[in-house]
Amino acid sequence: MKLFDCGMAPNPRRARIFIKEKNLDIEMQEVSILDGENLEPEYIKINPWGTLPALQLEDGTVIAEVPSIFRYIEALHPEPNLLGDNPFEAATIESWERFSEMQGMQAVGEYFRNSNELFKNRAMPGYSGVSTIPELVTRGKARVAWFYQQLESRLATAPYLAGERYTASDITALCAVDFGIRVGLAVPDDCMHTKNWHSRVSDRPGTQI
Amino acid sequence: MKLFDCGMAPNPRRARIFIKEKNLDIEMQEVSILDGENLEPEYIKINPWGTLPALQLEDGTVIAEVPSIFRYIEALHPEPNLLGDNPFEAATIESWERFSEMQGMQAVGEYFRNSNELFKNRAMPGYSGVSTIPELVTRGKARVAWFYQQLESRLATAPYLAGERYTASDITALCAVDFGIRVGLAVPDDCMHTKNWHSRVSDRPGTQI
Repeated sequence: MKLFDCGMAPNPRRARIFIKEKNLDIEMQEVSILDGENLEPEYIKINPWGTLPALQLEDGTVIAEVPSIFRYIEALHPEPNLLGDNPFEAATIESWERFSEMQGMQAVGEYFRNSNELFKNRAMPGYSGVSTIPELVTRGKARVAWFYQQLESRLATAPYLAGERYTASDITALCAVDFGIRVGLAVPDDCMHTKNWHSRVSDRPGTQI
Repeated sequence: MKLFDCGMAPNPRRARIFIKEKNLDIEMQEVSILDGENLEPEYIKINPWGTLPALQLEDGTVIAEVPSIFRYIEALHPEPNLLGDNPFEAATIESWERFSEMQGMQAVGEYFRNSNELFKNRAMPGYSGVSTIPELVTRGKARVAWFYQQLESRLATAPYLAGERYTASDITALCAVDFGIRVGLAVPDDCMHTKNWHSRVSDRPGTQI
């Protein structure tokens, strides 16, 4: 197996943390998003959607999309469990993992890409080739603020996003929050539960990556 | 169990088709998105994200987000299998299901909501409360065109999105395509494989809903 990775990008980091939490050693191949290598023919042959990460199996087939990569790796390497060990927990983890991506990661990405000249013809990840729209900078920022409110409400009632233990939900939320911090959208000071959670999950050996 | 549903909306339809394909009889409660009932306090108490559908269990707990509802129902009612019966198939189904939502359903929604006065203060599904942006009408349309190209490439090589059989990937893609048709973004005439697939999946008893 080989993971097509991009060291500076927040989505591939989700897969890298998952792999490290599983104590696996998987070959990584760097593809630079900043240099646009993910949209060049060589990589489009591997993943037509142009997104990173992608997991290539021994027979050459490719699994794109982070949650699918999570699912495949967990099926082959069930321990430690990160996707749930009963139907309700699995659904809860998937729900918060998804929320953290769509309302967190994508909102930060909307703010960041639309305010950055480098992404003027690729304002969304991958190949769909959309242009930046200045109003999305403001919208992205407002969405991130809402995302933090939702995290805070949840983490006031549970130590981790899916409940009592660390799961894939926390991996994606952590990557979204760290992406936010990097681009100037840090967790607001009054979100104490979120700050405590962030400090706890950031201390794990698996997230040092 | 009870499904909070909205009869005219494309995302709840994904859950309704899944339930019908499983031959299950689940109580449904209508919540009108057009009337904004999904953002009123009564529903926000059930699902703070304000999205539909949501599945409420006997003990009152709620599972939000369609893929999580799929996962929970499949765990309780494994047959007919719609989410994969081996790790590679499960990852492939999840990948195409997700792609059909994020690049299909959401792109059509971007086009539709941003061109509609009714959604001027709720341009994205649920509670995040963003305003419409005229440039997203054009962007949504371009993204839908790209989505159709991707479907066509895939369906030129396989009868269904995840391979040889009908799965949850096809459910979400069908709901995205039908949403597109409804708002004036039909499958282009030269996408013959997609049109054939659409005709085949539309003929299933489970999709008559």
